[in-house]
Amino acid sequence: MADLVADLIPVALPQNPYEIAIAAGLLDDLGPQLRDRAGLKNRRLLVVSNPLIFKHYGDRAIASLTAAGYDVARCILPAGERYKTPRSIQKIHDAALDHRLERGSAIVAIGGGVIGDMAGFAAATWLRGIGVVQVPTSLLAMVDAAIGGKTGVNHPRGKNLIGAFHQPKRVLIDPTVLKTLPVRELRAGMAEVIKYGVIWDAALFEQLEAAPRLDRYGDIAPLLQDILRCSCQAKAEVVAQDEKEAGLRAILNYGHTIAHAVESLTGYRSVNHGEAVAIGMVAAGAIATALNLWEPSCEARQRALIEKTALPVALPPGLAIADILDSLQLDKKVKDGQVQFILPTAIGQVEIRDRVPTDVLRQILTAMQP
Amino acid sequence: MADLVADLIPVALPQNPYEIAIAAGLLDDLGPQLRDRAGLKNRRLLVVSNPLIFKHYGDRAIASLTAAGYDVARCILPAGERYKTPRSIQKIHDAALDHRLERGSAIVAIGGGVIGDMAGFAAATWLRGIGVVQVPTSLLAMVDAAIGGKTGVNHPRGKNLIGAFHQPKRVLIDPTVLKTLPVRELRAGMAEVIKYGVIWDAALFEQLEAAPRLDRYGDIAPLLQDILRCSCQAKAEVVAQDEKEAGLRAILNYGHTIAHAVESLTGYRSVNHGEAVAIGMVAAGAIATALNLWEPSCEARQRALIEKTALPVALPPGLAIADILDSLQLDKKVKDGQVQFILPTAIGQVEIRDRVPTDVLRQILTAMQP
Repeated sequence: MADLVADLIPVALPQNPYEIAIAAGLLDDLGPQLRDRAGLKNRRLLVVSNPLIFKHYGDRAIASLTAAGYDVARCILPAGERYKTPRSIQKIHDAALDHRLERGSAIVAIGGGVIGDMAGFAAATWLRGIGVVQVPTSLLAMVDAAIGGKTGVNHPRGKNLIGAFHQPKRVLIDPTVLKTLPVRELRAGMAEVIKYGVIWDAALFEQLEAAPRLDRYGDIAPLLQDILRCSCQAKAEVVAQDEKEAGLRAILNYGHTIAHAVESLTGYRSVNHGEAVAIGMVAAGAIATALNLWEPSCEARQRALIEKTALPVALPPGLAIADILDSLQLDKKVKDGQVQFILPTAIGQVEIRDRVPTDVLRQILTAMQP
Repeated sequence: MADLVADLIPVALPQNPYEIAIAAGLLDDLGPQLRDRAGLKNRRLLVVSNPLIFKHYGDRAIASLTAAGYDVARCILPAGERYKTPRSIQKIHDAALDHRLERGSAIVAIGGGVIGDMAGFAAATWLRGIGVVQVPTSLLAMVDAAIGGKTGVNHPRGKNLIGAFHQPKRVLIDPTVLKTLPVRELRAGMAEVIKYGVIWDAALFEQLEAAPRLDRYGDIAPLLQDILRCSCQAKAEVVAQDEKEAGLRAILNYGHTIAHAVESLTGYRSVNHGEAVAIGMVAAGAIATALNLWEPSCEARQRALIEKTALPVALPPGLAIADILDSLQLDKKVKDGQVQFILPTAIGQVEIRDRVPTDVLRQILTAMQP
């Protein structure tokens, strides 16, 4: 990596510390990164990706890994949240067995959040845990999914219900791959970036506010290294303080409680994760205002930022409020039957609440119907 | 537990310390044990068991848990190693969802090693990890499987390839349940007890040698509290020093390298795990003698103990030596293509070797054919 200028962000976990590297051109440096930086000495690797990503970047990735001395096999899975199932994990495990991965071997996830979650969970559960290296190719995965060790698949009745904590050996982010990302997915990633602004980093929030547009690649590109560094830094700091979500880490679920219900009820099809998070943040912001936790002006600023990014601020058509309320009960964060909400108290600050009155919730969701 | 005299053995892990309690009558004390000793405050529990065990002990277990204030659901899975599959994990997950287990909830495994492995793995992978309490009902599970956090299921092409490390909150051993254990399974458990004698505890080995018979419950019963305490102590000490099997813990696999191959090639049917371990220990003992690592007299003493327990000392009929050698390559412990063997150097002492010449191995296995 002699020629690359990288931001290096430590994820300072006591048991499994690792680094996030952010640099244009990193994709062609995967081999040295794994061998010299992640210390992966075992020769066998399994690359997990999806057809489109692999078509764009597979040859470059495998060339770099092979040149560094690795023996690389691949497992290409169909794209999409609806394939994030135990069946796909079986396919990765079959490939791991065919390629005879050993305990010191690793899986390299090249793709978005779905690929990263599945590859990570397959690694967590193969030979009772082998290494995984995350090479996120969507903005969403770069700033969120690839960092922090949450892995898993969906249960037919709920998102991410099946999973494990399994930290990567290294996270390698090459921002240039976002050029080929569909704009709708770019915006989805921006939802998580806005989230970090609201929950952790007021300066990031203000930087986003200062941008004239946020709804297309050309306008986001100049901010990208900053956006990635600040977002990854926020995530790394939170995760390092609370790896297993005993407390603080729950704040990363800002907007996610309702997002998961919306995604589940729409069958993970019409609304993508970032869009659902945008809707969830609008709802959480309104709840916070209703409970007098933050200023209406803050709620308006958040809403303006979400709209500037061309993300949705209303529920998708056809959802019954009763179904959303019911679906919330299946959330992983339910404690003694109480749904947990992360609610903002200022730009850059949130708190955790588990007693949001159902009638407040119903009223806000009703107002958000299209 | 005021009336129970229990041996309490700490498993002193830095992250997840817990205790093994051994006491006659513990089965009727499950509720207070979970509430007051394991600190399980969340009310929802899922008991995982098999039909026969649940018929014998289910009512007593559930009565005790319910009396302690728990809301208990059950998931009863068919008995047998061939049901130790991802499909059974799905069934446990479905039951967890139906009963709305939360992150603070726990699964209570009441059964042998198969139930414990599956319940543990289901707990490891539900909501990214919920608690599990192990209530082993076979000697094998009491002295081995229930302790140390190894969980998992079988892949069609290899035993325990799918799994995770997930430590229990507590291990509760009631020796009186062994009265109903079929004698063949009791002997299978004795194979692991003999293992601890060979690898760790010469005094235990000598105590077993002093017993006139070891092939039936009546003769083992008077030694049972000692056997359980010494075996659990050995396992707990090894696990505490090396939770994730980076080094020392591998010695617990004494006899297991060949055992796994034998079990896999016989389809987990004709030979049970303990019998396979007995066969594996005979083979490992012969390898150690062939490599001049221990005295032929030690090998003879080990063989005599295995025979006194009415465990097999020869390979089952119909196995091709080439298939065994090939199957060894799929072992989880293979490192850079080298099969790892645990070989005794004295009674109570072993070492790890990864360079056993294939011709030595072939010769010894050939001599062990029936």
